[in-house]
Amino acid sequence: MAGFTLTPWEVTGDVDYSKVMEQFGTQPITDALLKRIEKIAGSMHYMLRRKIFYTHRDMDWILDEYEKGNTFFLYTGRGPTGPVHIGHMVPWIFMKWLQDKFGVEAWFQFTDDEKFLFKEGLTLEEVGKWTDENMLDIIALGFNPKKTHFLIDTRHAGTMYRQACRVAKKITFSTVKATFGFTNEYNIGEIFYTAMQAVPAFLPSVLASRNIPCLIPYAVDQDAHFRIARDVLPKLGYYKPASIESVFLPGLEGMAEQGKMSSSKKDTAVFTIDDADTVRRKINKYAYSGGQSTVEEHRKKGGNPDIDTSYQWLRFFEEDDRKLEAVYNDYKSGVLLSGELKSMLIEKLNAFLAKHQKAREKAAGKAEDYIFRQD
Amino acid sequence: MAGFTLTPWEVTGDVDYSKVMEQFGTQPITDALLKRIEKIAGSMHYMLRRKIFYTHRDMDWILDEYEKGNTFFLYTGRGPTGPVHIGHMVPWIFMKWLQDKFGVEAWFQFTDDEKFLFKEGLTLEEVGKWTDENMLDIIALGFNPKKTHFLIDTRHAGTMYRQACRVAKKITFSTVKATFGFTNEYNIGEIFYTAMQAVPAFLPSVLASRNIPCLIPYAVDQDAHFRIARDVLPKLGYYKPASIESVFLPGLEGMAEQGKMSSSKKDTAVFTIDDADTVRRKINKYAYSGGQSTVEEHRKKGGNPDIDTSYQWLRFFEEDDRKLEAVYNDYKSGVLLSGELKSMLIEKLNAFLAKHQKAREKAAGKAEDYIFRQD
Repeated sequence: MAGFTLTPWEVTGDVDYSKVMEQFGTQPITDALLKRIEKIAGSMHYMLRRKIFYTHRDMDWILDEYEKGNTFFLYTGRGPTGPVHIGHMVPWIFMKWLQDKFGVEAWFQFTDDEKFLFKEGLTLEEVGKWTDENMLDIIALGFNPKKTHFLIDTRHAGTMYRQACRVAKKITFSTVKATFGFTNEYNIGEIFYTAMQAVPAFLPSVLASRNIPCLIPYAVDQDAHFRIARDVLPKLGYYKPASIESVFLPGLEGMAEQGKMSSSKKDTAVFTIDDADTVRRKINKYAYSGGQSTVEEHRKKGGNPDIDTSYQWLRFFEEDDRKLEAVYNDYKSGVLLSGELKSMLIEKLNAFLAKHQKAREKAAGKAEDYIFRQD
Repeated sequence: MAGFTLTPWEVTGDVDYSKVMEQFGTQPITDALLKRIEKIAGSMHYMLRRKIFYTHRDMDWILDEYEKGNTFFLYTGRGPTGPVHIGHMVPWIFMKWLQDKFGVEAWFQFTDDEKFLFKEGLTLEEVGKWTDENMLDIIALGFNPKKTHFLIDTRHAGTMYRQACRVAKKITFSTVKATFGFTNEYNIGEIFYTAMQAVPAFLPSVLASRNIPCLIPYAVDQDAHFRIARDVLPKLGYYKPASIESVFLPGLEGMAEQGKMSSSKKDTAVFTIDDADTVRRKINKYAYSGGQSTVEEHRKKGGNPDIDTSYQWLRFFEEDDRKLEAVYNDYKSGVLLSGELKSMLIEKLNAFLAKHQKAREKAAGKAEDYIFRQD
């Protein structure tokens, strides 16, 4: 799409989220839908209210079925190529809320095959190490081990490959070529991979021998995989997976400059294992500012929170609406300086990370409680 | 190739085996090589002496390593889409001899994924049923359960898929397109599949954490898969698999008419589960005859054993060279009539099948002794 690139493997430029919704054929999350979710869940998540999760497919159907007693399960994934950054945490934080409020099962797919296949020079051993590391971040968020299941593609292929073949039989190279922009020079593992990504969307139905609705929270870059899954799954006798999709947490230099937060740009991402000094240094040095060039000018003209990374990040991590609104207004009016705004973000993030890192330490050795057991 | 079609999924027409050897770049099995095999094995198999196995790659290297104490393992496969016919048995009979004479491990791959992916309308359940059935035929041939291992692609994907990804990363769509003649309309499972077929050629090396030479006996139609495997495996640090390749057992109507024996042409194939009457009826009715149209003419001019299916089949199943030579001469001279030749084949095959069917019954319930155990 013009002005930005958006595939499961690359997001650069200033993404036009309305255009994405239009081209992918997803629905906006309306106020009526928000009210309905709030009524059933008993509360409202700030990421919904702020339209961080802004678009969906079949959420109304998911809620219809839920109210009839046909409870959905949740599915999302993690490509384990490096340490988790705070952008990765966004759908997981939201997923935890969904699990708690709806009392549902949650499935996480660790796409170690994908990362190995798509990244030149990366070994399965390295991907395995990151899988172990990344599981800790998900466990640390407090998912219920009785209702949460980790699938690791290569480890669980004994269960998954058979189902992936069923999916693969319905997808031609022409389709993946058109959907993902692959050429004839892509490797045959990359070409096959989308079939593996479809599996968790119906595996619980296979295991239970009955159809269970599936809701997938994800950032919009993963949409292509699930458009294919929605086409194929009904041909195999399963429901189309529903989805609820988020915008991206930008990298510190802002969406326009660098697109979504990326692990490969280490200075402009904040990792969950970063210490407080590192977070402070990165934000102070790299956070794109919407402020004016001098204090005097800023006091007079005010700043622009809509392009300021620090403010944008606070939208993802400051749960209190009133505090956030005050920041917005104070920054816009010039009362709040850029340095002060950065300090607020640093404090907020470091508090979040301190708590997370403590929980992450406690998660050590607990992975097997979450990893799916075959047979 | 002109005059015939030869791919892993289709063999029709009168295959020119010299041309195949030339185009695939394999070596002829020379008398010197035969002598060397005989010396090490302590005997000579009739399928080698008769050049039923007629071409190879790296057999000299396999024997060099064997003599140095670096023992090879054997690998071959079975695509479980229906009952086993006597054409399928050819490489297995030879493989049993190799296992006995060289005292080596033998690996069988059941390509249930392949058959499911390549055959419209075939279900995984059906392929699973045939896998169970087909295992009995291999067990019935007397393979040593302590040295024989069955891999079933979907069942053992927990071990195999990880290794297949390593292979797949080195193969582009361009390569499979050129090698197998695939188009963009092939499904992504078909495109990926050759990576799974490569796995048993190095899996024993992975499991043993040291490189073990691999020798693959197969009919020439499977060569394309192993040309790719030979290209890829050294890139992963393993030996190129060696091979020893056979001609086809023709269908009853002969190679020129129908190509190799095919399960989908039930009347012109003989299945291992066929009873004696069925075998008699099929051969009497369908076996292509090299004889003359009248007894008088046959006595006078003689028959042509080289195009006569009954004689061709005896080459595969009559182990006694002198008997076979007598048949050849008597048929050629007109002493032996076509009906008499057919009766000889019927008797030979029914004796073989009676023994096999008895062993096959005893094989029931023994599959788990052969099926590879993961972890």
